[in-house]
Amino acid sequence: MATYFITGTSRGLGLNVTKKLLLRPASEVSKIIAAARSESDALKSVIAGSNGRVEYVPLEVTDEEQVQKAASLAAGILGDSGLDVLVNNAGIMPFTKGGVPNMTDLKHVFEVDVLSVHNVTTAFIPLLEKGKLKKVVNISTAMGSIVQAPKYKLTPTPAYKIAKAALNMLTVQWHLAKYEEGFSVITLQPGWVKTDLGGQIADLEVEEAASAIEERLVHAGRPESGKFLNIRVYGWENGKPGKHNYYDGKELPW
Amino acid sequence: MATYFITGTSRGLGLNVTKKLLLRPASEVSKIIAAARSESDALKSVIAGSNGRVEYVPLEVTDEEQVQKAASLAAGILGDSGLDVLVNNAGIMPFTKGGVPNMTDLKHVFEVDVLSVHNVTTAFIPLLEKGKLKKVVNISTAMGSIVQAPKYKLTPTPAYKIAKAALNMLTVQWHLAKYEEGFSVITLQPGWVKTDLGGQIADLEVEEAASAIEERLVHAGRPESGKFLNIRVYGWENGKPGKHNYYDGKELPW
Ligand SMILES: NC(=O)c1ccc[n+]([C@@H]2O[C@H](COP(=O)([O-])OP(=O)(O)OC[C@H]3O[C@@H](n4cnc5c(N)ncnc54)[C@H](OP(=O)(O)O)[C@@H]3O)[C@@H](O)[C@H]2O)c1
Ligand SMILES: NC(=O)c1ccc[n+]([C@@H]2O[C@H](COP(=O)([O-])OP(=O)(O)OC[C@H]3O[C@@H](n4cnc5c(N)ncnc54)[C@H](OP(=O)(O)O)[C@@H]3O)[C@@H](O)[C@H]2O)c1
Repeated sequence: MATYFITGTSRGLGLNVTKKLLLRPASEVSKIIAAARSESDALKSVIAGSNGRVEYVPLEVTDEEQVQKAASLAAGILGDSGLDVLVNNAGIMPFTKGGVPNMTDLKHVFEVDVLSVHNVTTAFIPLLEKGKLKKVVNISTAMGSIVQAPKYKLTPTPAYKIAKAALNMLTVQWHLAKYEEGFSVITLQPGWVKTDLGGQIADLEVEEAASAIEERLVHAGRPESGKFLNIRVYGWENGKPGKHNYYDGKELPW
Repeated sequence: MATYFITGTSRGLGLNVTKKLLLRPASEVSKIIAAARSESDALKSVIAGSNGRVEYVPLEVTDEEQVQKAASLAAGILGDSGLDVLVNNAGIMPFTKGGVPNMTDLKHVFEVDVLSVHNVTTAFIPLLEKGKLKKVVNISTAMGSIVQAPKYKLTPTPAYKIAKAALNMLTVQWHLAKYEEGFSVITLQPGWVKTDLGGQIADLEVEEAASAIEERLVHAGRPESGKFLNIRVYGWENGKPGKHNYYDGKELPW
């Protein structure tokens, strides 16, 4: 009977993870609040086929008023049983030709990818406190691993890498603050996936990544709190020849 | 004959590291440009006793116009030989009572402690390219280590911890971009020190920390580029009973 609130569900991973969660029986996943800046046709059709289990809430994550309003709307939808799982998925990854020496978008990317995650989390804490699972999952990336930075040297997304490293520390701060109150706060590497953001040469199809992410959302919990968790994809446990990434379901190094 | 540009020299570590550098002969340290928001009395007296080796440049690091102007002034002072060592030292560490759930200053702290370091670095690259050493040292903190976050759980400075983790990734991005062109880009833990920022219960006297930092500024270089370097303080290599920190001169974990 778990309930979910997911940001950035108009397309990409947010949309497809919503679809995967919907495949579970209502006894397991009773309600998914799909937040997005606008209700895309794809999201509309998911909602239409969901028997009322998916509801749309408008949310531009950088707009603090909308964040407050989304929390009120969610409170109205969820009632006294509160929220079980918050998924901070919305994010952007702009390219900077020439890399960090030309980087001029750090402030903006930080606001979308880090600050908004903090503001959304803060606004949803009262609802999570009422929920049973008290789980927060922040969608990060292996490119946010400082240890693994040399591997991604040639990927010209410096602001994104810096923001996601900051997101990882934000996640750990929330874990340290709330773990003793029963929360689980996890930062998840969702894989390199063929979405608008990931591009068509990415490692994984949206379907397979969405399944792997959904598995983590459902099964990761207290033991994984405060950790930088990888998805697990069959055949990718040790990566593949010529590929940077591996998906072994274990912890990534910070 | 090395030249230095140091931000935040009005007081604290910036001021005291400037004093230590000045103890070296002019044949080793020919010029120190001491940047600060205002020329404090303490800085004035250091400059007065420096035989022209220390010069003041006004710099509020979050003001992009002032950053450009400081780079022009430095170019005028240094001439064709350029700059050898840039030290991004200016920083703030506000307290948040109750920790991350009450954090409302993340944006501001990020702008001072990370964005301004990026902007200053970018503005000084042409001068560093003319210099021989091509060294950039960013002053970080052990509290920016995600691995060590549990140790600092009770220190209510969440925005600072998140910003310094981001600073570490920023440093690594600059290292990866510029190392092959002869640069060394280092992130340095300066110790917990009795300054206005560190407070009077800190581990180290300003004098001993300033010496240890100065030693790193002078001696760390190519082999340390891209690393999270600790200062080394005699007797503190393995920490002390009841203390969180150790100062072994080695790498800190990210
Ligand atoms: N795809 C990958 O390979 C990959 C790899 C590692 C990590 N990730 C992470 O996974 C998450 C989802 O990525 P994706 O591949 O699904 O990206 P995507 O296909 O580009 O979709 C991004 C989603 O985030 C939303 N969004 C962006 N900015 C927003 C804002 N300010 N307010 C509200 N929503 C906003 C978008 O809404 P609109 O439709 O309104 O723009 C969209 O729903 C991101 O956090 C990303 O960093 C992805
Ligand atoms: N002390 C410690 O225990 C400790 C530990 C770890 C890391 N650090 C790091 O060491 C660095 C120096 O710290 P500290 O202990 O010397 O701190 P401090 O005594 O508070 O001095 C801070 C310095 O930074 C300057 N500054 C602050 N904001 C600025 C801005 N926007 N523009 C220009 N200058 C600005 C201050 O100038 P004003 O005088 O004009 O305010 C001052 O010169 C910081 O990066 C800090 O994070 C210190």
